[in-house]
Amino acid sequence: MKARVHVMLKDGVLDPQGEAVRHALGALGFGGVEGVRQGKVIELDLADGTTEAQVGEMCEKLLANTVIESYRIELPA
Amino acid sequence: MKARVHVMLKDGVLDPQGEAVRHALGALGFGGVEGVRQGKVIELDLADGTTEAQVGEMCEKLLANTVIESYRIELPA
Repeated sequence: MKARVHVMLKDGVLDPQGEAVRHALGALGFGGVEGVRQGKVIELDLADGTTEAQVGEMCEKLLANTVIESYRIELPA
Repeated sequence: MKARVHVMLKDGVLDPQGEAVRHALGALGFGGVEGVRQGKVIELDLADGTTEAQVGEMCEKLLANTVIESYRIELPA
């Protein structure tokens, strides 16, 4: 089974990478870009029957730095 | 309006970052992790009325390296 984890910086945490993208889009002539936040997406190919709780543990232990990042788990329905 | 762009390495392109995550998950005792691919997610805060075509142009020009990466655009319904 496939699981997908989205890891984003929490609101209020400075995102210099996103800021650089926003600036570059403006320089390329794209108007109206008010904000950009950049995060990670991790696609996991897991053994069938892996639970959301187990994926959550992977996030807490390795995939996300929960001090500054929040994560969201997407499992196949 | 908010748009979200997912950028992933194309299939067949080596993903050392994902491979490192896979290895680390195994070392932490998580079994059954068969594969990991890591990509980027970019959340854009755009002017209302921005079209999918315009976001596609941003991807082609800046957000994705289309030689090795594919992208997927998510717009609010």
